[in-house]
Amino acid sequence: VGGLARCLVAVVLAVALPAHAADLAQGAREVRDRALADTTAWRLVESLTTQVGPRPVWSSPVMARARDWGVAALTRLGFENVHAEPFVTKVWARGAESAEVVAPAPQKLQILGLGASAPTPPGGITAPIAVFPTYQALLDAPVGSLSGKIAVVVQAMPRTQDASGYGALVPARAQGAVEAARRGAVAYLVRSLSTADTRLPHAGYSTPAGIPAAALSPPDAEQLARLAAGGQPVVVHLAMASSVEEAVQRWNVVGEIRGAERPDEVIVVGGHLDSWDMGTGAIDDGAGLAITTAAARLATQGQRPKRTLRVVLWGAEEQEGSGGAFAHPAQRSADQKAAAGKVVVTGEADIGAAPVWRAALPAGSSDTEAMRAFRDAVVPLKVVVPATPPQSGGADISAGTPFVQFAQDATHYFDWHHSADDTLDKIRPDELAQAVAVWAAFLYVTANSDVEFREKAAPAR
Amino acid sequence: VGGLARCLVAVVLAVALPAHAADLAQGAREVRDRALADTTAWRLVESLTTQVGPRPVWSSPVMARARDWGVAALTRLGFENVHAEPFVTKVWARGAESAEVVAPAPQKLQILGLGASAPTPPGGITAPIAVFPTYQALLDAPVGSLSGKIAVVVQAMPRTQDASGYGALVPARAQGAVEAARRGAVAYLVRSLSTADTRLPHAGYSTPAGIPAAALSPPDAEQLARLAAGGQPVVVHLAMASSVEEAVQRWNVVGEIRGAERPDEVIVVGGHLDSWDMGTGAIDDGAGLAITTAAARLATQGQRPKRTLRVVLWGAEEQEGSGGAFAHPAQRSADQKAAAGKVVVTGEADIGAAPVWRAALPAGSSDTEAMRAFRDAVVPLKVVVPATPPQSGGADISAGTPFVQFAQDATHYFDWHHSADDTLDKIRPDELAQAVAVWAAFLYVTANSDVEFREKAAPAR
Repeated sequence: VGGLARCLVAVVLAVALPAHAADLAQGAREVRDRALADTTAWRLVESLTTQVGPRPVWSSPVMARARDWGVAALTRLGFENVHAEPFVTKVWARGAESAEVVAPAPQKLQILGLGASAPTPPGGITAPIAVFPTYQALLDAPVGSLSGKIAVVVQAMPRTQDASGYGALVPARAQGAVEAARRGAVAYLVRSLSTADTRLPHAGYSTPAGIPAAALSPPDAEQLARLAAGGQPVVVHLAMASSVEEAVQRWNVVGEIRGAERPDEVIVVGGHLDSWDMGTGAIDDGAGLAITTAAARLATQGQRPKRTLRVVLWGAEEQEGSGGAFAHPAQRSADQKAAAGKVVVTGEADIGAAPVWRAALPAGSSDTEAMRAFRDAVVPLKVVVPATPPQSGGADISAGTPFVQFAQDATHYFDWHHSADDTLDKIRPDELAQAVAVWAAFLYVTANSDVEFREKAAPAR
Repeated sequence: VGGLARCLVAVVLAVALPAHAADLAQGAREVRDRALADTTAWRLVESLTTQVGPRPVWSSPVMARARDWGVAALTRLGFENVHAEPFVTKVWARGAESAEVVAPAPQKLQILGLGASAPTPPGGITAPIAVFPTYQALLDAPVGSLSGKIAVVVQAMPRTQDASGYGALVPARAQGAVEAARRGAVAYLVRSLSTADTRLPHAGYSTPAGIPAAALSPPDAEQLARLAAGGQPVVVHLAMASSVEEAVQRWNVVGEIRGAERPDEVIVVGGHLDSWDMGTGAIDDGAGLAITTAAARLATQGQRPKRTLRVVLWGAEEQEGSGGAFAHPAQRSADQKAAAGKVVVTGEADIGAAPVWRAALPAGSSDTEAMRAFRDAVVPLKVVVPATPPQSGGADISAGTPFVQFAQDATHYFDWHHSADDTLDKIRPDELAQAVAVWAAFLYVTANSDVEFREKAAPAR
């Protein structure tokens, strides 16, 4: 059937022999439809999450397995110049962790230490808690007012499609320990940045503050708030171990489909190989690397593109936080650094496995022939293509290059993100295929046209 | 407003001065409406789950706290003859537990030992797994065929309103280890009897089989199935500690509202005080004891009933399994034993906090004046009152007495049942109040009439 389909396509092309614009539009539609029926992305994320499993960046054996998996996967899919680029990074490693209410009603708490948290002393910390209903209430507390206490922020995160609920609460996780320590607190607990109501806490990066910092599962945060509302002092015992290695070697895995006409013009896309430790990194970010890898492959199937498509599986995303519009210089590929000026556009898929609902293109590009072809191909997939450019591109994207952002529906993403629940069963193959189709259509038109995002970006708006 | 409402009701009663049947019907409606607006049940389950927390029957300090909480709660609500009845029972206690895939893809597994499971040797067990897609496939395996292996049943449980999906799978949890051991297995793992897709395993009773038995979270069961489908041998390491005490003292907490006319005729209802250890026992069974306690109080508010209402908070339900139609003689109250012949009817609420959708009455009783009054009161609450009697009454209900069953909607119950997710946030106060209203209407008409379930039961059907 595949061969027959290819024949039919060839016949159609031969008959129509369209002008360049129509050619691009027709190709984008074909790539889209091929992607919707394709299972490459699903098989990639299934294989990675099953055969490698959790991929905490602090585990050298695991990250070597992940590297080897990536090199093998890209090679098997026919990518060129497949290699692992080493870089050196600092890693924090989780140790044993436990927490419980000591008084007035002894019971265990479900916690997860935040990345870069300080450990407790070996015997743990026992202290009364001070509960803040919001992060702002903690910020409003005077310096010194938390001396000897464990600060607890119990603010709940809103469920949103565009992940803005997460963005609004990230400071409570990433900066809360710093702010609590400044006010005298001996430890910091924050309600997980989660939209679920399960007893699974959600990890994440936290700026080092010299005090232990951990996430509470949402029900545990509510339990502490109820106990504190009872009026009696609530005393919590917290024991957390962790270690830091200043310089370990990790790898970005790179593969290319070389351009036939202008190989030095490079489109860089990808997702990250590492994950938090409790889940298997299916939605964060097995899905993202699978989407971009499959899209690059599908966009070039049977036809070498004019420009070069480069896929990068970044090797250390989680420990610097996420969701920010900043680059990780240590993780930039050597090629990227050397040839930053020749990077046409970058894009990272790092928001799960649900369908793309919005495609934000670099400023000024939406009226180009290529982007019109892209837009026409993806509008039937229920994608909004706004006039405004994206605010950020992804944590692994180098600053200084134009970027696209394909926003996937984040309504349920934060039910599972950074928790033990980030597992393959949360992914629907048909939804994943829609995201691949959007990316593939974009990569096809960008790689087979001379659309220039960088030059357009300056004068626009 | 409460006083005014009571005045208006008094006026209506004075004007109408109804016959006995109309009186019962009117009273049932009033009790129902009072219950729908009442928060007693919510406050009970909130207090129990917050101030006592998890209530594993093996913890003597915790069960003493639970006993004291129960005595104080019933006393505060104005129950009479409030006391804790001691009994002696055998208890199994969970120790440290862990499991991980050793080969071909090292990764941790989320497990929870089943009640009454054997421990592993101190160093644990390392063995290849044999995966069975269904429990029947395990039963079909020849004796001896599992020698040296860890048997794994990965059958998923259907989501049902009437809990029949659970009933269908209980043998896989309760008898699976026995069947696996008979075939030579060294340990047994079963997919949690859960309708959720979280990484939280669900505990439960398992018949002692001489081998360790544990539940896998649903995603972990799927992961093992995928790994096994890869063709390479899958090796798992399992370490489980536990201990057994043959005879510990526990308590049923009892309270009554004594009957004004026929105090020896007793209606016995309740829920169980103990819970599994990972959650706070909110839906199982804080909700059930709160519903029945609040219903008994609301059914008798301001008016002593003709018969006696007895509430029992049973003290050791979880370790003998659940959902079965059998009694726990050791837990029967002394009064119950002495006066079994005078028990009018029994009922246990042990299926969560969602609304009642079906009220199954003892055979032959539905055409009585009292049950017609009950039915008319609860039909507006969207309750089905079928002609057929219930199949079972509840694990704590003494054999030999008539029983009612108020089936609450179990559609989501098994998302949380026996897991760390059994917490207060899963309960909606308005849904809980509906269940209280149904129970209260039943208790009101039964306690204020001469309806006889026992005599009716024999000739009917």
